[in-house]
Amino acid sequence: MNAPITIPATMRAVVMNAPGDVSVETVETPRVVKPTDVVIQLAAACVCGSDLWPYRGLEGSFEEPRRMGHEYVGTVVEKGAEVATLDLGDFVIGSFMLSDGTCEICRDGYPSRCVNAGEYTGSQAEYMRVELADGSLVKVPGGRPDDPDRLADYLAASDVLGTGWYAAVAAQAGPGRTIAVVGDGAVGLCAVLAATSLGAERVIAFSRHEDRAALAREFGADVVIAERGEEGAQKVKELTGGYGAHGVCEAVGTQGSMDQALASVRPGGHVGFVGVSHDQTINGLDLFFREVHLEGGPAPVRRFLPELIELIRSGEIQPGKVFTQRVPLEQAAEAYAAMNERREIKVLLEV
Amino acid sequence: MNAPITIPATMRAVVMNAPGDVSVETVETPRVVKPTDVVIQLAAACVCGSDLWPYRGLEGSFEEPRRMGHEYVGTVVEKGAEVATLDLGDFVIGSFMLSDGTCEICRDGYPSRCVNAGEYTGSQAEYMRVELADGSLVKVPGGRPDDPDRLADYLAASDVLGTGWYAAVAAQAGPGRTIAVVGDGAVGLCAVLAATSLGAERVIAFSRHEDRAALAREFGADVVIAERGEEGAQKVKELTGGYGAHGVCEAVGTQGSMDQALASVRPGGHVGFVGVSHDQTINGLDLFFREVHLEGGPAPVRRFLPELIELIRSGEIQPGKVFTQRVPLEQAAEAYAAMNERREIKVLLEV
Repeated sequence: MNAPITIPATMRAVVMNAPGDVSVETVETPRVVKPTDVVIQLAAACVCGSDLWPYRGLEGSFEEPRRMGHEYVGTVVEKGAEVATLDLGDFVIGSFMLSDGTCEICRDGYPSRCVNAGEYTGSQAEYMRVELADGSLVKVPGGRPDDPDRLADYLAASDVLGTGWYAAVAAQAGPGRTIAVVGDGAVGLCAVLAATSLGAERVIAFSRHEDRAALAREFGADVVIAERGEEGAQKVKELTGGYGAHGVCEAVGTQGSMDQALASVRPGGHVGFVGVSHDQTINGLDLFFREVHLEGGPAPVRRFLPELIELIRSGEIQPGKVFTQRVPLEQAAEAYAAMNERREIKVLLEV
Repeated sequence: MNAPITIPATMRAVVMNAPGDVSVETVETPRVVKPTDVVIQLAAACVCGSDLWPYRGLEGSFEEPRRMGHEYVGTVVEKGAEVATLDLGDFVIGSFMLSDGTCEICRDGYPSRCVNAGEYTGSQAEYMRVELADGSLVKVPGGRPDDPDRLADYLAASDVLGTGWYAAVAAQAGPGRTIAVVGDGAVGLCAVLAATSLGAERVIAFSRHEDRAALAREFGADVVIAERGEEGAQKVKELTGGYGAHGVCEAVGTQGSMDQALASVRPGGHVGFVGVSHDQTINGLDLFFREVHLEGGPAPVRRFLPELIELIRSGEIQPGKVFTQRVPLEQAAEAYAAMNERREIKVLLEV
């Protein structure tokens, strides 16, 4: 059905050599190794907020240069003998965690904690190898979109939208509920979009940056509040009859953001936390008397992908708006710098 | 409909004078103060594990003697003008937290965090005043039981059963699920009973005391394990295909018990924690990568009381078995000593 695809022996890929030092190098093109692998040709990739932790030297030492990237959309160009659900030429989305789709944890909706989690070779590149392809990748009906904005939407689903969606689901966003979102990065903004899409009656975004606040409003935020800490929590309570939000999405991962979330939710409410935790501790007695639900971790994006793809295909959501800059893969160093300096919300790498 | 009831001017009541010093004193009998109050004549009360914290001098200083007790069943002997759902002579159960039943928090099922929470005068006594009677108390159909065992069952519903029930509900006990219970005190044992009643496929109890393990088995535990810490968690994993329990009830409140719960649950699973937290902290990164649901706090016992009363009335559950000793109210000092020395699981005070 599909013409044979020629895969070049080498390709260009982003490498972090040391904190603050990103370059694009020529490396060997990955190929199928296991019968459940595929190789995809990337259509686009991007830089994640979590890539900035090693960039800033805050995540262990560099014994050797690292291949980067875990968000991706692309076309299947090689597949292992046991791959059953995908064909060459299929345009697919995967998430930052690979999953077999068959273990009890996957079946219960937590593929991000699959007990047989697979690996990938880094998506900031022309090609990548993806293990457990059947369990991990979802085919986009209609193939690769011509519209670059639509492509950006699909790329967003790979991580930031899927992660924001999880936060909103864990916060039990839905009709009749007021949802607050802590964090105005790409994930927080996508959590606003998710809460809105899931039918929340009112969405409150915390933001002090006008560009981000504007996008939050475009994504459905009814109120944007600049206050933080106790003042911020007080503001949420004023907006909710004194009770606090029904649910809060925590999309940063710091002590301050978790404290903000816990202080802003009502008793019996739900906090969904998806910011990768850095030096957070939660006091047991405080949590006990707050009496809230807490759920979070690496987002089970794969669970949501079929639904997200449909929402994007139908034009109901445009999460790609979080990409405020697009640069060719060769300019990855600039993309990292722009994100690091918070000049851009999120940068797309055109491959 | 009911004959007038004469309330004596004074009554006997338990007083904690200082850590380790409990006596029974003659005090003024409480009367209705607010129009939403009732006064009940106690049928039975009991000593709670949480009463042992001040008894051991671990909970603040004693500026003055304290009236004790927050578990109770009894008969309405006086009611305020606005009490609508209860009559003189009704036999009622309430919980340790009073609630109006009308605020949004109550309506969402968290009466233990009612924003208008009421007060009571201490249940280790002949009479007690209960505020917010309509929202807080539930009438037992058929009135006060003649059978002292049945009376003990109803008394258990007031706190330990309701609290264990909450832990099991928060741990999402139900068909097809394996639930582990950390803690073999009265609450933990009631969590075993609750998980079983809610249809859990398998219940695993942690216990090293043969009397408590025996009651856990009687309440439905399929497996009792003596191992703790990593070994205990490993044992739970061995019993669950390597995944961990679907849900864990944490019924102690220490760092060790919370760590045990978190280590024993599978990703995507649920931890219900009801032990009053003492010096617990939860590491954010650990929680993030465990990816579990966490819910707990003061149990919303009122939510469950109608269901629990029916299960007791029909004889389906006998939670009163947690009372391993019954003594007259006048011997309260002995009851405290027996619980403090862990000679008894829980002591009932006959009024």
